[in-house]
Amino acid sequence: MTGPKYLTGDAAAISDFIDRFDVFLLDCDGVIWSGDHVFEGVPETLELLRSRGKKIVFVTNNSTKSREAYLKKLTSLGIPSNTEEIFGSAYSAAIYISRILKLPAPKNKVFVVGESGIEQELRTENVPFIGGTDPAFRREITPADFQGIADGSLLDPDVGVVLAGFDTHINYLKLSHAFHYLRRGAVFLVTNRDSTFPMNHNLFPGAGSISMPLVYMSGQEPLSLGKPSQAMLDAIEGKFQFDRARTCMVGDRLNTDIKFGIEGQLGGTLAVLTGVSKKEDWEAADAVAVPAFYADKLSDLRAAAAP
Amino acid sequence: MTGPKYLTGDAAAISDFIDRFDVFLLDCDGVIWSGDHVFEGVPETLELLRSRGKKIVFVTNNSTKSREAYLKKLTSLGIPSNTEEIFGSAYSAAIYISRILKLPAPKNKVFVVGESGIEQELRTENVPFIGGTDPAFRREITPADFQGIADGSLLDPDVGVVLAGFDTHINYLKLSHAFHYLRRGAVFLVTNRDSTFPMNHNLFPGAGSISMPLVYMSGQEPLSLGKPSQAMLDAIEGKFQFDRARTCMVGDRLNTDIKFGIEGQLGGTLAVLTGVSKKEDWEAADAVAVPAFYADKLSDLRAAAAP
Repeated sequence: MTGPKYLTGDAAAISDFIDRFDVFLLDCDGVIWSGDHVFEGVPETLELLRSRGKKIVFVTNNSTKSREAYLKKLTSLGIPSNTEEIFGSAYSAAIYISRILKLPAPKNKVFVVGESGIEQELRTENVPFIGGTDPAFRREITPADFQGIADGSLLDPDVGVVLAGFDTHINYLKLSHAFHYLRRGAVFLVTNRDSTFPMNHNLFPGAGSISMPLVYMSGQEPLSLGKPSQAMLDAIEGKFQFDRARTCMVGDRLNTDIKFGIEGQLGGTLAVLTGVSKKEDWEAADAVAVPAFYADKLSDLRAAAAP
Repeated sequence: MTGPKYLTGDAAAISDFIDRFDVFLLDCDGVIWSGDHVFEGVPETLELLRSRGKKIVFVTNNSTKSREAYLKKLTSLGIPSNTEEIFGSAYSAAIYISRILKLPAPKNKVFVVGESGIEQELRTENVPFIGGTDPAFRREITPADFQGIADGSLLDPDVGVVLAGFDTHINYLKLSHAFHYLRRGAVFLVTNRDSTFPMNHNLFPGAGSISMPLVYMSGQEPLSLGKPSQAMLDAIEGKFQFDRARTCMVGDRLNTDIKFGIEGQLGGTLAVLTGVSKKEDWEAADAVAVPAFYADKLSDLRAAAAP
């Protein structure tokens, strides 16, 4: 088996690579930026791709921000965009609930374990919800809560979905509510299953970890609306029509981004070395996924030969 | 294969059963009591066993109470006892850390995810700890926490163990600290892996669920100091010398109590039907464990023929 094609410094190979695709799905953290720091040359690289008529879609598992919030961040980093180009796992989940799951009202209410990004996207799709950032759920559990959850008097009979995402305000009260909704038959969704979340150049508990108590307690596997779950690609495709064979996934993580592109049978995958995964990861015998192309950094594509 | 021997109403069989054993290990919730309600006839049954010279040990996975707190509860329910007869998973963990793990001071400090029962037992064994019920950890995570955990300045270099148990005050801050201690090589212990915790005649998130984010994030399997882990039986045996062949485990749960007794090669196991597991559970083809004896309730043993 041949390894991935290395693009950095090879103008002809880069041009050939760019010419193969009409659409680039781009992961954000570790590709475009790290935290609040945009990688040097990335805005110009995206400009180059656009100037060659390529469609760009930002695809991120981070559910803490809505598309509006991502748009603000991209703009502040010198990357002109619009919400139509942005696809986060919170939006992916909202679309899945409203357009694919389509539970009949009023039994379509969502109990949210997560932050405001999820709430904003659910509002965009007119999906009713409880939980989330509501201060009524950001507190310690009381004997009255135990009683009311146990006898059902504190549970909302209209909840038909539990949606869990990244939540730095996770607590026992929310887990207890979510667990009892799952026991009553609610559909179990998670924005993504990332075990960790990058912060301050280190790792912290991710959405996948936050939802593990519910997985373990309920004995149910949730449907994930983030990479590498193909439900996310289905949701993207439901919104943008594109030719998978002419589409390339660009990312820094083999187990989410590259796996997502390969399982989605996209025309190509490009790994960049500015984030989590390293060359050794795909050279390992038990590599979770091997990209078709790789480059040291996204901005290396600027060395493309003139068209 | 023959099923378990049914004792209820069979005076001769009960006497024979009692005569086979010198020691009875008794689960509490679902056997002795349900919540704060002691089952009718149980105090008298325990008195009968004692009058026949049997040793009784209360063995519980619940880590929220120390042995002192269990003693108070037993006394209030009309069951005379003493702390030497009580063995909870918090005590089991404290003994394991102090007498088996024996990390050299000062690198033997424990980061506790759990409640006061664990803290009290660690104090009994003179094991230093941080976390637990300390209000400094019962709050929301701040940007300064992210920074200090990421760069290590807020981490205690002496922490050599992470011990997770039942904790209704679980939060993102504690999970983040615990995760970073595990990444730095701390030994990973849990009081038990019960997915649920019985409260108000219903089920709530248990210690096993609370610790799942750490399991998933760290990729490490913790050592459990609760049933059915044999580490708990080893800890009991380290304290009380007893003949396993002359010891019977009594419990209501196949997957903890009965499995614990069978894997520990005890002389017998007795299932009672006053808790979680039912007759159908061990009659199922995929039963997790099959008891040697069963009775409708513990107090049925009072029908023993006179010795």
